[in-house]
Amino acid sequence: MEPFKGVDIVRVRDDSRTHTTDRAATEEPLEVRLHGRPFAVIMRTPGSDCELAAGFLLSERVLKDADDLGAIEHCTDETAEHPENIVNVTLANRSAAALDRILSGRRLVATNSSCGLCGRLTIDSLRAEAAYMPVRWTLTRDALLQMPIRLRSAQAVFDETGGLHAAGLFATSGELLEFAEDVGRHNAVDKVVGRMLMREALPLESCALFVSGRASFEIVQKAIFAGIPIVASVSAPSTLAIDLAADAGVTLVGFVRERGFNVYSHPSRIDV
Amino acid sequence: MEPFKGVDIVRVRDDSRTHTTDRAATEEPLEVRLHGRPFAVIMRTPGSDCELAAGFLLSERVLKDADDLGAIEHCTDETAEHPENIVNVTLANRSAAALDRILSGRRLVATNSSCGLCGRLTIDSLRAEAAYMPVRWTLTRDALLQMPIRLRSAQAVFDETGGLHAAGLFATSGELLEFAEDVGRHNAVDKVVGRMLMREALPLESCALFVSGRASFEIVQKAIFAGIPIVASVSAPSTLAIDLAADAGVTLVGFVRERGFNVYSHPSRIDV
Repeated sequence: MEPFKGVDIVRVRDDSRTHTTDRAATEEPLEVRLHGRPFAVIMRTPGSDCELAAGFLLSERVLKDADDLGAIEHCTDETAEHPENIVNVTLANRSAAALDRILSGRRLVATNSSCGLCGRLTIDSLRAEAAYMPVRWTLTRDALLQMPIRLRSAQAVFDETGGLHAAGLFATSGELLEFAEDVGRHNAVDKVVGRMLMREALPLESCALFVSGRASFEIVQKAIFAGIPIVASVSAPSTLAIDLAADAGVTLVGFVRERGFNVYSHPSRIDV
Repeated sequence: MEPFKGVDIVRVRDDSRTHTTDRAATEEPLEVRLHGRPFAVIMRTPGSDCELAAGFLLSERVLKDADDLGAIEHCTDETAEHPENIVNVTLANRSAAALDRILSGRRLVATNSSCGLCGRLTIDSLRAEAAYMPVRWTLTRDALLQMPIRLRSAQAVFDETGGLHAAGLFATSGELLEFAEDVGRHNAVDKVVGRMLMREALPLESCALFVSGRASFEIVQKAIFAGIPIVASVSAPSTLAIDLAADAGVTLVGFVRERGFNVYSHPSRIDV
């Protein structure tokens, strides 16, 4: 599988709006199995999957060194729907009891870039809970272009470190309603969404979410659970983020810079 | 708690080496409890903790809307060592059986920026497995300054998307030995470390790790488990990454740019 894929986008630059193609980084779930039993799901860019599984299991302390590693290979089960997204690991020198201990009390855990999936979803049900969002309002190009500027000026008060991500919730007018900062992008989104949840303001049907980093599958998923129909970011979205946004009726915008942006799904919500 | 803290650094710019102070984004674990029972650990920047817990539980589908939320507050248990890092959530309208279902089969799960901790560690044992690394070799300033350039030129072949993180493993001479790309920073590190594990090359005592993003607690933790004594990045480290590196004998370098860098721990490994 390629580390990037061609995607159809609407490119907005100044007053022009062009249908064209771009490339997005591939994001796919990798299920790591221990002795054939599900252990974890990692959202990753395909390639070096066995190495990823080995390194991940080292960090998890399931493996301490190479002696613990028996075999590690892609799934050979021909009935599996996506064997290229499954790696099976066999541990050496482990009793059945020790393996049970590792697996016991451990459900399917999704990690790294997709922690919203932790312990709950399998590869095949990743998209199951997404409700389709109808287009109810549109956002102007200028409101969108102002988002990173407004977010940065709110953030400037706090972030003197260069080390914090930010997430902002914007009104249909482009006004910044709420923002939060965190070392983690996902946390910044959870903070603004959680604040609105506690105010009983969900679903956030009349809001757009802007994030300072990249837009991954999980960021879009969080927006969907909060009922937010527009997700924008200063950087690139992943293929899975684009697919999920397209499926769920979410407008996904990337590379919001001074003179324009790219729209990856449902461009009808953006007035140019 | 402040979202950033003052830290002592060695600032290297051209030929000068200055002891000074800088600010780093605060990273601390937040334990989310459901009805007093541990549910998850999230590595986060303190502030808006209750909102973070609410948003996180929405993404986890433990909460569907505000009606599900009973109470949410910081720990009031005076015997807890860090009550400011614990939020307790009470669910409304949930039977004891439904709560048991949510908690059952679920161990302490660390998420988002710290997935290497998934299902295994509590707040108090985060640092327990780190072995101290003695100084055995030094890296020249020029070798360090070349790292982002060498990594980028290797990466340029693959990344045409602007959406991929990269991790590189460098020799004491500054030569790039291995690199990997991924939508996730943690995955890129796991891929290069896993590759070396599969070659039975661990511990990587004569290697430095360079990452394209920020250096969080978990990146340093992964380096430690792989035996890597130098971790450098183009961006900022978090407070917890600095603390862990200092404790474990790891040299942590940040903001590696054209004319210099900042050293956050064990600067004696860097020759200027």
